[in-house]
Amino acid sequence: MTVTIPAPVPRPQINDLEETGIMKIFLHGVGRKDVIPFWAGEGDVATPDFICDAVNRSLAAGETMYSHSRGIPEMREALAAYMTRTFGVPVGEERISLTTSGMVAIVVAVQMAAGPGDEVVVLGPVWPNIFSVVEVAGARVCHAGLTQNADGWRLDLDHLFAQVTARTTAIFVNSPGNPTGWVITSEQQRRLLAFARERGIWLIVDEVYHNLVFDRDVAPSFLQVADPEDRLLVVNSFSKSWLMTGWRLGWLTHPASLADVSTKLIQVITSCSPVFLQRGAIAALEQGDPVIANLRARCRQGLDIVMGRLASWPRIRAHSPAGAFYAFFEVEGMTDSLATCQEILDQCQVGLAPGIAFGPQGEGYLRLCFASRPETLHAGLDRLEGYLGGSSRQL
Amino acid sequence: MTVTIPAPVPRPQINDLEETGIMKIFLHGVGRKDVIPFWAGEGDVATPDFICDAVNRSLAAGETMYSHSRGIPEMREALAAYMTRTFGVPVGEERISLTTSGMVAIVVAVQMAAGPGDEVVVLGPVWPNIFSVVEVAGARVCHAGLTQNADGWRLDLDHLFAQVTARTTAIFVNSPGNPTGWVITSEQQRRLLAFARERGIWLIVDEVYHNLVFDRDVAPSFLQVADPEDRLLVVNSFSKSWLMTGWRLGWLTHPASLADVSTKLIQVITSCSPVFLQRGAIAALEQGDPVIANLRARCRQGLDIVMGRLASWPRIRAHSPAGAFYAFFEVEGMTDSLATCQEILDQCQVGLAPGIAFGPQGEGYLRLCFASRPETLHAGLDRLEGYLGGSSRQL
Repeated sequence: MTVTIPAPVPRPQINDLEETGIMKIFLHGVGRKDVIPFWAGEGDVATPDFICDAVNRSLAAGETMYSHSRGIPEMREALAAYMTRTFGVPVGEERISLTTSGMVAIVVAVQMAAGPGDEVVVLGPVWPNIFSVVEVAGARVCHAGLTQNADGWRLDLDHLFAQVTARTTAIFVNSPGNPTGWVITSEQQRRLLAFARERGIWLIVDEVYHNLVFDRDVAPSFLQVADPEDRLLVVNSFSKSWLMTGWRLGWLTHPASLADVSTKLIQVITSCSPVFLQRGAIAALEQGDPVIANLRARCRQGLDIVMGRLASWPRIRAHSPAGAFYAFFEVEGMTDSLATCQEILDQCQVGLAPGIAFGPQGEGYLRLCFASRPETLHAGLDRLEGYLGGSSRQL
Repeated sequence: MTVTIPAPVPRPQINDLEETGIMKIFLHGVGRKDVIPFWAGEGDVATPDFICDAVNRSLAAGETMYSHSRGIPEMREALAAYMTRTFGVPVGEERISLTTSGMVAIVVAVQMAAGPGDEVVVLGPVWPNIFSVVEVAGARVCHAGLTQNADGWRLDLDHLFAQVTARTTAIFVNSPGNPTGWVITSEQQRRLLAFARERGIWLIVDEVYHNLVFDRDVAPSFLQVADPEDRLLVVNSFSKSWLMTGWRLGWLTHPASLADVSTKLIQVITSCSPVFLQRGAIAALEQGDPVIANLRARCRQGLDIVMGRLASWPRIRAHSPAGAFYAFFEVEGMTDSLATCQEILDQCQVGLAPGIAFGPQGEGYLRLCFASRPETLHAGLDRLEGYLGGSSRQL
């Protein structure tokens, strides 16, 4: 008897998940040694030795067992101390959940705030993974957009508020913003928080670039304007500030009353994070201020190099970002940023991220991460110049 | 003006997630140096040095950046080779997704197979995290139960099939089973697979204890009876076989046609796993057979010690498990296994897991992990004997 085997097609909501434009390009070229990678949110410098050494010591001590879902006590204390000294507001360890990546922190936050039938207003252009997380949770993304004026990207709060409906349970804001470099003001944070309180909705804020700003030491945090028990979930990560992208460690700052719920959610996502990686992360927090300072200096230099050269390319329009480490620039005449990135990858061996990846407001733009060493940046820009630097070529 | 701040209560489906009985006990006692921990699924031996050394070399080589969502190519090739040689059926790398824990592999599998309105039949008693994963996905758990006869736990397939309704989209089976040690037969696998094909539903099978069996080298895998494109998702983990519980590395074996969907899902859960941990995992696969052999010998010894001593305790009834590394024993007169575990923890300083944690079929039982060294087991059993070993005490 022949049995027809039904094809292994996942449920539609999962099957139809869109691969982000960043991943399409990244997967197209990852592993190719000839590519200069400006597509991802990382530079070309590996994690500092003192952080890796702490891992080695922990492994040698046999710290390879299961542990606390929200992080070992020393980890949470170190994060609480970091948040307190960085933002000048007291944050206790009971408000901290270590997560196995900032990505997991976003998953935990969205799962708490939005489910089937709910809507999440997402301010874009923005790192696209949030869209998929909301969809996997069964909720719907409502796009709100930053606007551009002569000075660069800006937030029109009334436009943002207008996207909120009776079904909205959360607003997602990323500041300093990827890919735009936009940074929210404290005044805007206060107005947004007041609006969210009035409506009883959650604010999920991604502050992973909080200490990558160019006109001050640290970007304003929503934690500075909120009460500890506000419906505020602040996403953070070790990836950017301490050159630890591949480590998959992040954290969520939440109301203390949510510690138990956070524990339960983490338990059924990754259960816990490796203790020996936490030892590295603790070292980063306790001895890593020079790492941040060096990275910021390198990014400042990278920004100057990239913006300086782009400024002389006739078809490129770019505003200097206030934070994060991306040039997000408009290319005159470009209508398909994904196809352009694929062509650039194949012709120039440079990895860029397509603007369309960051939501509907991103088409027409390309993103270039400038966190790399000057020589890497110049080498990549040299390769790009023939493709993007002229004035006549039709894209 | 005073604004009333709405309390930060997560959506009901998340707020009402139950903390598992294992976690309740674990969190009650974790970090206490005086406790002998038999509650979790791990022994008292740290990860072998040669695995840790591979991590150190990778960190020294600067492998700290983002990478492939499904694992670096060498990792997937090593896993495909391991699966092929272990189960004697060809498994290609395109069917493998490395995940940041076996837990994440379960999340990916459930997300593919079940969403709001769907039902998942779960065969218990079983490790409880699956219940929460199904609930977080918006689906409903339907409990099916192993039964007990004079020889121990057995599967009545007709009872299992009777739990399947028109809403059922997946069946979850864990073999070798935690906590029961039950191992499914190849004939039962064939019948279950035929049933699933006929109904067009998914089989999610947790085989993390596949090489911890006591009467042969490896437990039968569903991969041995299935076609490559069956709706079969096999969950695995580095945790148990290679003493890597704290590493959070697992893998999912899926139809090749699901590689892209798996990539997308992993991308929005943890994005990828640390490359330097993958180097350790590759070392485990390539040089770790003696680790497995030693662990199996230690578990065999642990089984004999624990079953031998429990046999002389009048109120305890226990069957020798065919696989995994747990004694799951019935305690005469015990009606509240969670309260009993808390009392045992406080009075005996021994951590056990309560049977109720493993679903409705588990009440009346306690679980003890015997993966530890003989001296640890004897020390723990000595402490337990006063509480559990007598005949007169009312529980």
